[in-house]
Amino acid sequence: MDFKNKIIAFDADDTLWHNEINYRNAEKEFARTMLPFCEQQRAIDYLMEVEGRNMELLGYGSKTFIIDMVEAALELSEGRATCEQIREIIGIGKRVVSPPMRVFPDVERTLQRFYPVCPLVLATKGDLKDQRDKIEKSGLGKYFFHIEIMLEKNEAEYGKLLKKLDIPPERFVMVGNSFKSDIRPVIALGASAVYIPREIAWVHDQTQEFEHPAILRLNHLRELEKFL
Amino acid sequence: MDFKNKIIAFDADDTLWHNEINYRNAEKEFARTMLPFCEQQRAIDYLMEVEGRNMELLGYGSKTFIIDMVEAALELSEGRATCEQIREIIGIGKRVVSPPMRVFPDVERTLQRFYPVCPLVLATKGDLKDQRDKIEKSGLGKYFFHIEIMLEKNEAEYGKLLKKLDIPPERFVMVGNSFKSDIRPVIALGASAVYIPREIAWVHDQTQEFEHPAILRLNHLRELEKFL
Repeated sequence: MDFKNKIIAFDADDTLWHNEINYRNAEKEFARTMLPFCEQQRAIDYLMEVEGRNMELLGYGSKTFIIDMVEAALELSEGRATCEQIREIIGIGKRVVSPPMRVFPDVERTLQRFYPVCPLVLATKGDLKDQRDKIEKSGLGKYFFHIEIMLEKNEAEYGKLLKKLDIPPERFVMVGNSFKSDIRPVIALGASAVYIPREIAWVHDQTQEFEHPAILRLNHLRELEKFL
Repeated sequence: MDFKNKIIAFDADDTLWHNEINYRNAEKEFARTMLPFCEQQRAIDYLMEVEGRNMELLGYGSKTFIIDMVEAALELSEGRATCEQIREIIGIGKRVVSPPMRVFPDVERTLQRFYPVCPLVLATKGDLKDQRDKIEKSGLGKYFFHIEIMLEKNEAEYGKLLKKLDIPPERFVMVGNSFKSDIRPVIALGASAVYIPREIAWVHDQTQEFEHPAILRLNHLRELEKFL
């Protein structure tokens, strides 16, 4: 892949820094709190169901996750959850709102290398406050000439972003860990993508993968340098 | 006030459409659900306290409001709230997430008049999904060349917006109902403001008002036409 004259957009959560791991850990804590009522895997599976059912109304992000957990607890306990347990669950969720920021190794070095060569965009999805807080904590905001916090990462929303920034698709490269959110929609628009899958993925952010000449698959972000 | 060569930005909630009334009604419903534990006014006052305490971590919007209400219920009931009551409270909150859209009378007519004459911006604050859903429901998005959903409406954030859109402060007019969020910060930047206060205001969005030659105070948005 050739990055000459390209504008590179980076996904943030699980591309630049750890994110899903915080949710996975919170789910386990949630499941432990639910042990008086059900087995741990049942609690996690049920929470996923509630997430799916609430997604259209409440969208993504840490606050939605708190509400999903409380609802799941009320239902899994069949009305027997105590106020103390609900309060504990809200506490678990609040720690996901503001977890320690852990940027992946070599991310800053990679951004430093590309920053003088290509205009860089940050294109992330989720709750506005969650994302703004994380960008600030990471200290990486300065490398990007534009930061877009998108409600959905689909073809239509990427199309609007390219139009707004006046970028022709053939000059746009999206780098991310989610095939559904970062890769598939930009390929459909005629742009390119760098796919860096992570072991941990959210069940609601998974999709059928395919190969395509405009998709470069890497194991680590730092490998991007080789193409500079 | 002269709107020639001006760029006009409109606040959305309670400037273009009803918003606070939905929260006020939900607060009353919440207080009724809390009647087994305390008087209604006490429930509402306590909810305001929880809102204040959670604001830095959770920000604004309907999902935060749901979490605030659940926490307030756990505490007001001193651990005696039932799952059924918590579930009822989540239901009250979910109706605030997606209330019927009620645009104020004459808003569309006013936008139609200004739209061919001045570039219009929508500058609103709050949860990304809340705001995007409301803009879509209102059908008013088409009148604005730029829509900005801001995390905070303070001097720094307005400054960034003006810079991004390349608008000199002397050409910028902000129209809104909140002195704290729509008027004070833009005046500080050297821009102008049209202040249209509403009877209903959120306790956390109130501030000391002052008069200033660059502030035009109106009773209704439709009066804006007179200055065209």
